Amino acid sequence: MSEPTLDPADWSALRAAFHTAVDDGLAHLQGALDAPVWVPPPASAQAALREPLPQAPQPVADVYAAFKAHVLPYGVGNVHPGFFGWVHGAGNAEGVLGELMAAFMNANVGGRWHIASDLEHQVVDWCKEMVGLPASASGLLTSGTSMATIIALTVARNTHASGDVARDGVAKAAAGLVGYASTEAHSCFAKAFDLLGLGRDAVRPVPVNAAREIDCDALEAMIAADRAAGLVPFCAVATIGTVNTGAIDDVARVADICAREGLWFHVDAAFGIGALFSPAHRHRAEAMGRADSVAFDFHKWFQVPYDAGIALIRNESAHYAAFSARKEYLATAERGLAAGEPWFCDYGPELSRTFRALKVWFTFKSHGLEGLGAIMRKNIAQAAYLEQLVRESAPRLELLAPASLNIVCFRYVGPGDRAATNALNKEIVADLQELGLSAPSTTTLSGVTAIRACLTNHRTRRQDLEALVRGVLELGDKRTAASAA
Amino acid sequence: MSEPTLDPADWSALRAAFHTAVDDGLAHLQGALDAPVWVPPPASAQAALREPLPQAPQPVADVYAAFKAHVLPYGVGNVHPGFFGWVHGAGNAEGVLGELMAAFMNANVGGRWHIASDLEHQVVDWCKEMVGLPASASGLLTSGTSMATIIALTVARNTHASGDVARDGVAKAAAGLVGYASTEAHSCFAKAFDLLGLGRDAVRPVPVNAAREIDCDALEAMIAADRAAGLVPFCAVATIGTVNTGAIDDVARVADICAREGLWFHVDAAFGIGALFSPAHRHRAEAMGRADSVAFDFHKWFQVPYDAGIALIRNESAHYAAFSARKEYLATAERGLAAGEPWFCDYGPELSRTFRALKVWFTFKSHGLEGLGAIMRKNIAQAAYLEQLVRESAPRLELLAPASLNIVCFRYVGPGDRAATNALNKEIVADLQELGLSAPSTTTLSGVTAIRACLTNHRTRRQDLEALVRGVLELGDKRTAASAA
Repeated sequence: MSEPTLDPADWSALRAAFHTAVDDGLAHLQGALDAPVWVPPPASAQAALREPLPQAPQPVADVYAAFKAHVLPYGVGNVHPGFFGWVHGAGNAEGVLGELMAAFMNANVGGRWHIASDLEHQVVDWCKEMVGLPASASGLLTSGTSMATIIALTVARNTHASGDVARDGVAKAAAGLVGYASTEAHSCFAKAFDLLGLGRDAVRPVPVNAAREIDCDALEAMIAADRAAGLVPFCAVATIGTVNTGAIDDVARVADICAREGLWFHVDAAFGIGALFSPAHRHRAEAMGRADSVAFDFHKWFQVPYDAGIALIRNESAHYAAFSARKEYLATAERGLAAGEPWFCDYGPELSRTFRALKVWFTFKSHGLEGLGAIMRKNIAQAAYLEQLVRESAPRLELLAPASLNIVCFRYVGPGDRAATNALNKEIVADLQELGLSAPSTTTLSGVTAIRACLTNHRTRRQDLEALVRGVLELGDKRTAASAA
Repeated sequence: MSEPTLDPADWSALRAAFHTAVDDGLAHLQGALDAPVWVPPPASAQAALREPLPQAPQPVADVYAAFKAHVLPYGVGNVHPGFFGWVHGAGNAEGVLGELMAAFMNANVGGRWHIASDLEHQVVDWCKEMVGLPASASGLLTSGTSMATIIALTVARNTHASGDVARDGVAKAAAGLVGYASTEAHSCFAKAFDLLGLGRDAVRPVPVNAAREIDCDALEAMIAADRAAGLVPFCAVATIGTVNTGAIDDVARVADICAREGLWFHVDAAFGIGALFSPAHRHRAEAMGRADSVAFDFHKWFQVPYDAGIALIRNESAHYAAFSARKEYLATAERGLAAGEPWFCDYGPELSRTFRALKVWFTFKSHGLEGLGAIMRKNIAQAAYLEQLVRESAPRLELLAPASLNIVCFRYVGPGDRAATNALNKEIVADLQELGLSAPSTTTLSGVTAIRACLTNHRTRRQDLEALVRGVLELGDKRTAASAA
């Protein structure tokens, strides 16, 4: 009797599609140096994707051809050396190889006894060592820092609650908890406090100094004021690498304050983990080893393909207590497939977990911290070079934030008022992107629109930064001349 | 000046590794039919993985060779036709191809204007159509149903709160909220209520009937009792396909109760979404189109490689309101790369999002709903066949739960008391796994240990079920004889 399967009767078409895909994928990476940084998806591609729910099977060659024609050319641009927008890694081919094999293995790393769990434990151990947490700490690979932050703050909330908040909820067991992060901290904190039922207003926005680092005197005063008001300060965040400007908070001092005040100390090092690899910055970051929890991404400065981040928690038993909740069908066995404790599902909200550790493992082993660190140091040096180019272009260009790590914010100085110049700089950035020349993003610093270049891209060359500056000057001049005409 | 990059100077070694990997990966899938279902990771493989944080780069061929020797052979077993444990999909090669190309593209689908967003919107639209939600509904691909449930219940909580719970927290704005799910519902509900600050005791465990479906009379009585006690019932869950036995709640009646009581109606169809594709079950599932939110997985019965699930929310604006919280560096532009609204980061907790829609797209197009539905119908028919085999083996085997969908629970009837027979059945399952013969899992039904076979595997053949039954009988007899001797 013939029963259906998704495996083909003849694997040759599938094998051919895979080999073609590998060549196309590698050519896509090799060609990134010469291709436009970004091509807006044409209406034809969007229209080609719009189709009814597929009923009949289609040959894999046809599906792949549709992908190659309508999807592959219209990515976000971050594999290109001229991409400096937001905080995107560029990926790496060895990481892709790891992802490929993870997909073939199709492992669910939520639990059970199989090698993927051992490999993830090894990656977690490497990360503990890298950030300076003790071997007794625990960790979990996540989709990124946002999810890692939710996990870390859940453990923090449960640890500092007045009662059993997991069972009884915030209203009965954790009312009045407040935490602290600077005004420059990532939006994931407000989102996490919201999600966890503490409310986003329970993250107190601590002012920053001129370097956009957390004002520790203000932090101390705010903690005291909140205590006086009957609230329960329970955690504070130090950011290593803010998104706007790459600022690094005074990690050691935040650690001291947390120790003295009995607060959970969380470090957000989403991309700023790279500071550990720069002799000029390492001393400002290494107090992260004192943290109760640390979150960072592999898909940013470590160049692992999306997505991959990690939550590290100093207190393993608190971490386990916060997330272990298995039912009878998930009981562990002494032997067989249901052995293999600890199970990662006991350390986060997800029961099914992809084998994303493999692409991290491939990346770390193939490039080593030497290779990855060299990229980070290169990007930091490139940021200094870009800052210099901007300074040399004064007064047509104005530096808005010096390169404290790997981010440079500047603008084209137009003839108009602030609003007009803000609008002009936004147009320049859109022009650069649409022309495929360069892809910085924008931000707003004290009401001023900035062209923002974040260097977390291993393919970026000095010539790409020169092209950015040249492009901003030319487009700014052209638009200014056109509006004057 | 030479600046470092992670790209190789010569791509030939990398290209060779990819082509080898593709052949190995496809051979791994083709060979699954003949390989043991599971091989416990040997100490040698575990030892090989244990190594210090890599400092120096290693040639990709060496990294791949280590993977091939120590990782690839020791997966969880779910690509094998004899894997029936927990609820695992077997994956499919076309889905692997999609994952490969997503990794090459390295798109971050949190936002911005690029084709990956269009493609994810298309996949979401297909899913809305499939479950019967209106075109105005919203959706987000997630790591799985656990995360989709957190997203759905966040929207539910915020919608039914007395105040602005996102800003002010549960204590001020959502105290007393309670929800309902059956005692057979998934553990993700308790975990979500915990995470969201409502507390896991705020999920009321509704009793089940003899078929392990939610007792709707009890649900109504519990809602009334909670209201009388001053609590605020806000949501109820219908499960399509419980993990223990595959039971399908009376979806239409739960929908009616929610409509009458003004509750958010959530449907958990993690794998049970497959009921839509069975003429014998569809009528029991299709009321899911009345839900306020639906969550299900692609990596289970749809055979997409891990991980992929989806949250669908009827009220798009409530969904957006619950998760949109962007800072200045994430402002949308009218044109250029920062255009492309809506951005998916506004519909979930994650700002960086992997392009997992691509492997779903490859799977849906390559196999069509015809192909995928045929697998689900095959598995349902196989469950009935397994039930018959168990019945035919009475009294040595005892059926513990009939196959209402795709799950069969049974046991070997030993000579001892309940505790001895429970222990015996656990040993039989571990034996089967260790021998590489078959991989069911276990569960506990009313205090009785069950051998549980969940058929969500496109490779499974009738002969694999016959081997399971034969194996259970032989191992049970052998162990019984040994203990009598």
